[in-house]
Amino acid sequence: MREELAIGIDVGGTKVRAGLVDARGKVFAGAELSVGKERSSKEVSEKAARLAGELMRGSEGEVEAVGCGVPGIVDFREGVVRASPGFPGWRDEPMRGMISGALGRPVFMDNDANMHAVGEARFGAGRGCENVIVLTLGSGIGAGLILGGKLFRGDEGFAGEVGHVVLEPEGPPCNCGGRGCLELFAAARSFELIETRLSGEEASTLRGALGGKGPDPASAAILAREGNEAALRLWEEFGRALGVGIATVVNVLGVETFVIGGGISRSLDLFAEHARRSALSHTYVRHEGSLRLIRAELGDDAGIIGAACQALSCR
Amino acid sequence: MREELAIGIDVGGTKVRAGLVDARGKVFAGAELSVGKERSSKEVSEKAARLAGELMRGSEGEVEAVGCGVPGIVDFREGVVRASPGFPGWRDEPMRGMISGALGRPVFMDNDANMHAVGEARFGAGRGCENVIVLTLGSGIGAGLILGGKLFRGDEGFAGEVGHVVLEPEGPPCNCGGRGCLELFAAARSFELIETRLSGEEASTLRGALGGKGPDPASAAILAREGNEAALRLWEEFGRALGVGIATVVNVLGVETFVIGGGISRSLDLFAEHARRSALSHTYVRHEGSLRLIRAELGDDAGIIGAACQALSCR
Repeated sequence: MREELAIGIDVGGTKVRAGLVDARGKVFAGAELSVGKERSSKEVSEKAARLAGELMRGSEGEVEAVGCGVPGIVDFREGVVRASPGFPGWRDEPMRGMISGALGRPVFMDNDANMHAVGEARFGAGRGCENVIVLTLGSGIGAGLILGGKLFRGDEGFAGEVGHVVLEPEGPPCNCGGRGCLELFAAARSFELIETRLSGEEASTLRGALGGKGPDPASAAILAREGNEAALRLWEEFGRALGVGIATVVNVLGVETFVIGGGISRSLDLFAEHARRSALSHTYVRHEGSLRLIRAELGDDAGIIGAACQALSCR
Repeated sequence: MREELAIGIDVGGTKVRAGLVDARGKVFAGAELSVGKERSSKEVSEKAARLAGELMRGSEGEVEAVGCGVPGIVDFREGVVRASPGFPGWRDEPMRGMISGALGRPVFMDNDANMHAVGEARFGAGRGCENVIVLTLGSGIGAGLILGGKLFRGDEGFAGEVGHVVLEPEGPPCNCGGRGCLELFAAARSFELIETRLSGEEASTLRGALGGKGPDPASAAILAREGNEAALRLWEEFGRALGVGIATVVNVLGVETFVIGGGISRSLDLFAEHARRSALSHTYVRHEGSLRLIRAELGDDAGIIGAACQALSCR
């Protein structure tokens, strides 16, 4: 018997990607289009529909469902993108209707972090787990919660704002309007802030090694792998902050499996043990043996696979 | 047609209470026995069984199920109490088997905070909500999570340790082994710590009004209702800390309905607005209109009703 097929679409800030996926999470064919300067939701929706249409024509079997992940605040019931950090002008864009209209068939739409989480939980690093938290470490921190085997969205679809868990109530301001949020200390943009908390000697060693520039994840990783002490300290502080955030999720939810994705997860070996130790120092000792931080396995395909998989299960 | 009946048992540190409850959450008859000095799990289990037996004999209809809530770390699958703060000597006590054996029928057992939460969510202040967080403010902070209409326990039954959400990573030590936990700042035992953070003038006004003693929730409430500025400041700080904890839960779960129970909830009017404002200052603005802090409605009966209700639904 032939497997069911679905199309997953992943909208990013610079390109739209799509893939033909079977019910076991295998990607058969993929395609992408870059997003131009106009970046209107209409333009992006048309590109998504063109990609999906192309893959449908090329598929040998029947495509059962089409799913799409979009960054930002997505009203999945209405299929409307309320706002998106990657597309600052967008307000209440009815993208599901646009893609669906251009394609001539129903489309499922949700937040991209949720789609990543479904992909990793079903077919990636979290497979087999009833409860998994998928953290995506990028310029901010996204999270998808799989609880009892299902995506949990909260009352209005805003679950998983783990990046805005408060680490320092009186800390530096965050662009969410709050202060001292986790993603100020444990995301790509955190490295310059962490640098300010090193000792004067550490900071000047680091600046010296970076030719006077501030650190970023890539340069901090290169230096740390060369044994640069100050860079290793940056990752230690990064891990320590992330661990406090993880402890918070463990204390609230009692979930012990965290899948770490996003660009910075390439450096997981540099901060995983610091994060784990920090998390355990803020949770009951009984989590010691069972708390797991695992690297995401599906890379860029997680969103495509998750969108396809969620679309199949929401038919 | 006659309603289904169940017995709910609520084990506390000083007494065991039980009630005959119908499927609409109405308590028909109740009984209690005090817990003596020995406080072995065998003694407590026997009292629970005697109460349940008495209520069964007195009921006119058939009792369909028996449920029991016990404070502490309860392995609900095995029916074993791993440890309990109210009964320091208990280790891996097979209480479900003891009660069930003495009663001659199956018994359902879980943590008491979970049973409170089920009671309030089904028949109390949270009724009608798909997602509710029930916080019990007492000497510590307990929480029960109702997600998607069901009790969520986490991987091993340890969900809801909201009292150990980290407020100050380098703050005062907590008896969980961590530092700066929420329940150091927003539970019954927090008032002396909060006092140390008042200004010198506020603190000495307060000590004067209390005849030199340190504040506790009851005295702080009396003084605050009399308009004592320093006591009002205590409740402001209490609410501010609780609000940060609530913000954390909102950021992780996107759930916006919080039912506040436990002894301190009698003073909810003194801290609710501070807590709400503090929570909103640490979450996205979109929660402004929908975040709700509601007082628990079932009082001491919540645990009995929840245990009966959960036992009926787990048959």
